Amino acid sequence: MPEENYSYKHLFHFTKTIFQKIGCSDTDANIATKSLLSADLRGVDSHGVARLSGYVRLWEAKRVNATPVLKILHETPSTAVVDGDSGLGLVVAPYAMKLAIEKAKQVGTGWVSVQNSNHFGIAAHHAMMALQFDMMGIAMTNASPLVAPTFSVDKMLGTNPICVATPAGTEPPFVADLATTTAANGKLEILQRKSLQTPEGWVQDQDGNPSRDPHILKKGGALLPLGGDRDHGSHKGYALGAIVDIFSALLSGANYAPWVPPFPAYVPMPAQQPGKGIGHFFGAMRIDAFRPADEFKRDMDHWIQGFRSCKTIPGEERVLVPGDPERVIEAERLQNGISLLDAVVRDLHEVGKKFGVSL
Amino acid sequence: MPEENYSYKHLFHFTKTIFQKIGCSDTDANIATKSLLSADLRGVDSHGVARLSGYVRLWEAKRVNATPVLKILHETPSTAVVDGDSGLGLVVAPYAMKLAIEKAKQVGTGWVSVQNSNHFGIAAHHAMMALQFDMMGIAMTNASPLVAPTFSVDKMLGTNPICVATPAGTEPPFVADLATTTAANGKLEILQRKSLQTPEGWVQDQDGNPSRDPHILKKGGALLPLGGDRDHGSHKGYALGAIVDIFSALLSGANYAPWVPPFPAYVPMPAQQPGKGIGHFFGAMRIDAFRPADEFKRDMDHWIQGFRSCKTIPGEERVLVPGDPERVIEAERLQNGISLLDAVVRDLHEVGKKFGVSL
Repeated sequence: MPEENYSYKHLFHFTKTIFQKIGCSDTDANIATKSLLSADLRGVDSHGVARLSGYVRLWEAKRVNATPVLKILHETPSTAVVDGDSGLGLVVAPYAMKLAIEKAKQVGTGWVSVQNSNHFGIAAHHAMMALQFDMMGIAMTNASPLVAPTFSVDKMLGTNPICVATPAGTEPPFVADLATTTAANGKLEILQRKSLQTPEGWVQDQDGNPSRDPHILKKGGALLPLGGDRDHGSHKGYALGAIVDIFSALLSGANYAPWVPPFPAYVPMPAQQPGKGIGHFFGAMRIDAFRPADEFKRDMDHWIQGFRSCKTIPGEERVLVPGDPERVIEAERLQNGISLLDAVVRDLHEVGKKFGVSL
Repeated sequence: MPEENYSYKHLFHFTKTIFQKIGCSDTDANIATKSLLSADLRGVDSHGVARLSGYVRLWEAKRVNATPVLKILHETPSTAVVDGDSGLGLVVAPYAMKLAIEKAKQVGTGWVSVQNSNHFGIAAHHAMMALQFDMMGIAMTNASPLVAPTFSVDKMLGTNPICVATPAGTEPPFVADLATTTAANGKLEILQRKSLQTPEGWVQDQDGNPSRDPHILKKGGALLPLGGDRDHGSHKGYALGAIVDIFSALLSGANYAPWVPPFPAYVPMPAQQPGKGIGHFFGAMRIDAFRPADEFKRDMDHWIQGFRSCKTIPGEERVLVPGDPERVIEAERLQNGISLLDAVVRDLHEVGKKFGVSL
């Protein structure tokens, strides 16, 4: 697959200009671009600039409001519910995460559930905002239904990711960002492009039979919860996805379960939606609300070093700590640029043409 | 396997008397018994009265303090760290959970990390304490190392369970209580008794090769994180277990990773322990700190009913909601009694003999 290479700075300028062209303020365009491109930097190519045209189409379909008025609907000293006013999740999420951080400064922790938002890019970007304040950051979101619960043929949950980021001392932070499915949808796309089958336990067909076809979602199939099947703990992956849905949407008044709005603008909205938009959930916990931060960080360094120095199984180079692979990719891409597939480059040219912006 | 049947009331009286004989106050013996037997009621037989002799042996080895003075080491309006004073986790955990609930009453949420504790039974018992206050309850704990991270031969984490309990309206509460491994250790014990092999992806041998031997832990093998192997998302199960360890022990100053104290009293304590005892983490979130509780509960009922009415894959009777199987077992056992394996009954007779108490 031929690829073209672009610097982060170049993609940032292009992407920000597009967000401004759809009506975002300079500030919001900056925030949205930073959120979106954090995915490209961290190697989560499915969630980065490759989705820019998708966000534009949602705006064209009037499902995204480029000038949202973000509101706090209800709050207590440690909690809030935010109305995203149909804004870009890429903008709404950092707003809500900041609010969680402010509350943590005041009372030790802050927890913000969000309704009426849209897709927020990668969870890690938002959770990691807490790190600079010596806080743990937590971010999750629900998403449109692609996942069948254990024993179900119906698709009821999104890939509903959870991210937890925690600071360390001399070691880099621990950042775990995981979809609650065996494999995220982006992994299927990679296999489709390579004409390969999926491993067992990733997907099922429309009747609930095991499948290894990476195109199966288009044929009525479903992604499977982390675990794959009942014998391998899929009821746990299902429960985790459900928890994300409850925190993100039931606490906020967003849509939940099969009623979560789809990302592709051409897919009709589900009928009889029970809530507003997509839901997210954010948390910030001040380390020194529990324990002196330097003691915690010393222990985190010790913890991280212990895992890094584990004896490996034959053929494996090293045991990784969550966040290690993404950090390596980010450093490499900041230095050498970001390779985009030809299909993505063509798509960006098309988006640019709409607004008279060249890539 | 022959079994004997006992009423909950009968087992409660016996267990409470044993806890009193080792020195627990009447109040603490009550709390500990309720915590312990909640496992038997919910069908988690591995964590209930079958472990009573194990707790007694920990007390005999002076690893459990029957008269702990529980202390708050540090607190903010929404957080606290509790020192369990080497008490029974069965007593320390409800104390910490109550504290989380009190904080949630004041500022919306409460989060308590615990050091210097012991095994706390099942997480669900503690998390569910929040339900009566129209709060979500969260409970987790670390445990002695049986689990190898992805690519590792070394055992670095416990089965580190997470429980989230959330109230509903006319529907029963949603209660997800899951070990962050493909299968909990208790499942291996069942296969051992039946001389059956494990499914693939549950365990590995001492060199990290896939194994299906349920006795493999005694031969240097390890349990695998939820997902089983890298292709099936074991790095996610590993990350979840790590998050539980960090919340429970790094935030509190308890032992973490391979230094967590073992449950069997005959297993020596790990050398150079970095913290104190076992760690737990508890959370309580007041529903109306986010949204009117009646609106939330109406949506939860709708959510639950949606999942229950999913079309099932052929051969499966119904799609379950987390907490369904345990609730059915509890109702049945409260009515018909709790069947104990002969080996457990013999063990209880032995414990009783030590203190002149008959089963």
